[in-house]
Amino acid sequence: MDRRGFNRRVLLGGAAVATSLSVAPEIDRAVAATGTAPAGGATRHLKLYIEELPGGQLGYGLEKGKATIPGPLIECNEGDTLHIEVENTLDVAASLHVHGLDYEISSDGTRQNKSHVEPGATRTYTWRTHKPGRRADGTWRAGSAGYWHYHDHVVGTDHGTGGVRKGLFGPVIVRRQGDVLPDRTVTVVFNDLLINNLPPHSGPNFEATVGDRVEWIVITHGEYYHTFHVHGHRWADNRTGLLTGPDDPSQVIDNKICGPADSFGFQVIAGEGVGAGAWMYHCHVQSHSDMGMVGLFLVKKTDGTIPGYDPDDHDHEHAHGSASGSAPGQKQEQGHQHGQGHEH
Amino acid sequence: MDRRGFNRRVLLGGAAVATSLSVAPEIDRAVAATGTAPAGGATRHLKLYIEELPGGQLGYGLEKGKATIPGPLIECNEGDTLHIEVENTLDVAASLHVHGLDYEISSDGTRQNKSHVEPGATRTYTWRTHKPGRRADGTWRAGSAGYWHYHDHVVGTDHGTGGVRKGLFGPVIVRRQGDVLPDRTVTVVFNDLLINNLPPHSGPNFEATVGDRVEWIVITHGEYYHTFHVHGHRWADNRTGLLTGPDDPSQVIDNKICGPADSFGFQVIAGEGVGAGAWMYHCHVQSHSDMGMVGLFLVKKTDGTIPGYDPDDHDHEHAHGSASGSAPGQKQEQGHQHGQGHEH
Amino acid sequence: MDRRGFNRRVLLGGAAVATSLSVAPEIDRAVAATGTAPAGGATRHLKLYIEELPGGQLGYGLEKGKATIPGPLIECNEGDTLHIEVENTLDVAASLHVHGLDYEISSDGTRQNKSHVEPGATRTYTWRTHKPGRRADGTWRAGSAGYWHYHDHVVGTDHGTGGVRKGLFGPVIVRRQGDVLPDRTVTVVFNDLLINNLPPHSGPNFEATVGDRVEWIVITHGEYYHTFHVHGHRWADNRTGLLTGPDDPSQVIDNKICGPADSFGFQVIAGEGVGAGAWMYHCHVQSHSDMGMVGLFLVKKTDGTIPGYDPDDHDHEHAHGSASGSAPGQKQEQGHQHGQGHEH
Repeated sequence: MDRRGFNRRVLLGGAAVATSLSVAPEIDRAVAATGTAPAGGATRHLKLYIEELPGGQLGYGLEKGKATIPGPLIECNEGDTLHIEVENTLDVAASLHVHGLDYEISSDGTRQNKSHVEPGATRTYTWRTHKPGRRADGTWRAGSAGYWHYHDHVVGTDHGTGGVRKGLFGPVIVRRQGDVLPDRTVTVVFNDLLINNLPPHSGPNFEATVGDRVEWIVITHGEYYHTFHVHGHRWADNRTGLLTGPDDPSQVIDNKICGPADSFGFQVIAGEGVGAGAWMYHCHVQSHSDMGMVGLFLVKKTDGTIPGYDPDDHDHEHAHGSASGSAPGQKQEQGHQHGQGHEH
Repeated sequence: MDRRGFNRRVLLGGAAVATSLSVAPEIDRAVAATGTAPAGGATRHLKLYIEELPGGQLGYGLEKGKATIPGPLIECNEGDTLHIEVENTLDVAASLHVHGLDYEISSDGTRQNKSHVEPGATRTYTWRTHKPGRRADGTWRAGSAGYWHYHDHVVGTDHGTGGVRKGLFGPVIVRRQGDVLPDRTVTVVFNDLLINNLPPHSGPNFEATVGDRVEWIVITHGEYYHTFHVHGHRWADNRTGLLTGPDDPSQVIDNKICGPADSFGFQVIAGEGVGAGAWMYHCHVQSHSDMGMVGLFLVKKTDGTIPGYDPDDHDHEHAHGSASGSAPGQKQEQGHQHGQGHEH
Repeated sequence: MDRRGFNRRVLLGGAAVATSLSVAPEIDRAVAATGTAPAGGATRHLKLYIEELPGGQLGYGLEKGKATIPGPLIECNEGDTLHIEVENTLDVAASLHVHGLDYEISSDGTRQNKSHVEPGATRTYTWRTHKPGRRADGTWRAGSAGYWHYHDHVVGTDHGTGGVRKGLFGPVIVRRQGDVLPDRTVTVVFNDLLINNLPPHSGPNFEATVGDRVEWIVITHGEYYHTFHVHGHRWADNRTGLLTGPDDPSQVIDNKICGPADSFGFQVIAGEGVGAGAWMYHCHVQSHSDMGMVGLFLVKKTDGTIPGYDPDDHDHEHAHGSASGSAPGQKQEQGHQHGQGHEH
């Protein structure tokens, strides 16, 4: 991947480049393809810090003092290998356990396998990914591509119940060569009765412009089951959330039951067929939405306006939060992390 | 669609034409194809009344004084547009919020977007649907086809918790051209610990004759998760509930976990491979079935008998209800509503 | 099927032949195909005993005095018919109700249909299975293949709540001609807050050698929802748990929400891409794993060692149980039952 290609990936994925995302969107406009995932095979080195955050919360961060809830999006392509050096700045043991990827038992992130990180210590976890392919026995081996996640498995209990509750989790996306890349990615973590550990009735809200290809990764943690619902948009219940074509039999849904450690993802064209608006997303368990598990998908017209939406309106107070919306150490939108920042 | 075609659709879909459904069924008899869904593209106008029902319940109805729980089945074909004039006869604000279909934010049915209906007022909601197709960027856009549903989003709380609890919900089916049409459609709504808001241990029961192609739409509402199970019949966990052919990898199931606002549908050939009988369907959460979340799928022989079934038998008292079975304002079987009744 | 063929099936499926399973496995070694399921069409006769077990538990067994929890794996091929004579040795009525297979209402296993077994009595249940195929009306009829299960529907309540709680359940696998056969099959039943009715924090553990093709069947019973998770291994969310090839759009997962009477299965190559280790599997609902819904998938190197694993280590005490691990009347690993043992 040349520098140009690399930059393009970062631009396409990054939250920092919203200015590039507002090119002439209109209802039902066919967006220009934003590119597809390249072949994997790279080896990358990251550093993750486990840190305390205000209010007794905990987070993972790529830089010291910059931990967030959820932790940074870690994104790679099938075939990539990631070496992640974890520095535990807490005064209790913690760890990094990942779902879906290949790792030897020494990178399991459990106390049982002595693969945790003692207070003040550092440990390198290695995650590998692989392409799909046919085994010698003729059966098909699935590739690593998927919407996965990582979390602590040690703080509080041997299953990381305390660490997860306080915020030690984050999204992982493994892409297959040819997968459509989004304009931006947002992460929703239903963790007990909160979203991304924010206070109830305070979002997070996500902004987009009609026509943006917005990727959602939805993760559940904690104790309860939930049903994730978004207004005005829907997705396919398959690997990518996008139907592969007319023969893909998957159900198309706008509501999905999920339980702790489930994760899935999908892409929507913001406002496709429905236009701009302040579209709610929420847990559809009635008491959970009433208690504040709700945020807004703020889809703007190209002139920046949202019909019927006034952030200062009383009727919106239950879900608007702030537009940028982060509590200290929290962010709603993920910069994509390809690991180059810590190339060794 | 000529009048003949239209009548056929109504006949095939309607509950009133049971006499047409009993042509020579036998175990494993291949039923004659009952026809397939036509191309959509029509524009239709409906009127829905939101009404109080006995016992403090609420319902949607197509005619004044005829609200039901669940509300009327609204069925259309990909490409159709529905304009639904809702008259709110309650003394509190209410609304109509739909899942899966295309609607602008002004038809969202939420107080937040000022798209609710004040007491005594009327508001027209517009639902659009679209066929699947390839976007200009090469990706595949899913069509609107699916087993969806509508519900109030305003009564009691900003998420309609009170309205939904009292009965403000109903099924929506969007068909794709070529989808197999059923002989009849039945709706099951698991709403908190009741089915279709009927008292516990009172059904609803659904009648069919061996060989009928019976379509089920299953919707969940409220607070709890459930597992929908039917005896002696099963379906594919995909868009239609029918495998598309030998290459469809979907799991075939007879039990499915679901949470609030989940919906799915499927078709079975009544008694296929198993014959006539009083086949239970129920929530398989043990306490829920014990508390009465159970009904019967009464599959008759062509002579009208059901082996081993005596509706007056003590052993059936827990689930038989009445054969027609409706509490005031409640019905178990859906007439299909194509909207022509209120063509403007 | 000649005797040689029969023996091969039993060998491949049986837990007793672990010595045959350790041929030169290495990480990512392509295993030799272990064979595929033959065409069905056989008629078989089994006998099942319903018995009391120590501690007030109940079980199904193929021989008198040998009931287990879960009950014996019943495995067949599409087209097979099973006649199962059930002897109820309890002092209360009990039954045999199966999911997914074809049975007439007289084999429903419910009190409602008078298809239960009185104390001390015997009743024969007939289960049929069928191949997929096209109906005369052109639609595709799904075959019976699947990961199913059987359970009592009578003890305690009309839904068998008492029987199921105490252990009256077991796995059923129906294979399609050509389905890949595993080296061994393990059964996990999440039943209320226990796994296979074992005490908390006591497994069951399952042993394998790197390269073994291990089939898991996962069943849920009781009152609670769970999320099944296994470390270091994953599967496809489709009929077999194996992708059919590069065009299968199914999501690949390592965590799945499930509720009472849900069942699914999959095959993994033990240690594929990750190597030997003591890999946890557990319910991922945090309180459930903390309360002991956890076991180990003990994947050994060919020399029998497991890196980082010491069964006597304090850190493993919460999940190691015993290697063979059975409480009286309980077993973790299923011998395959093809019914020939009771050919009449």
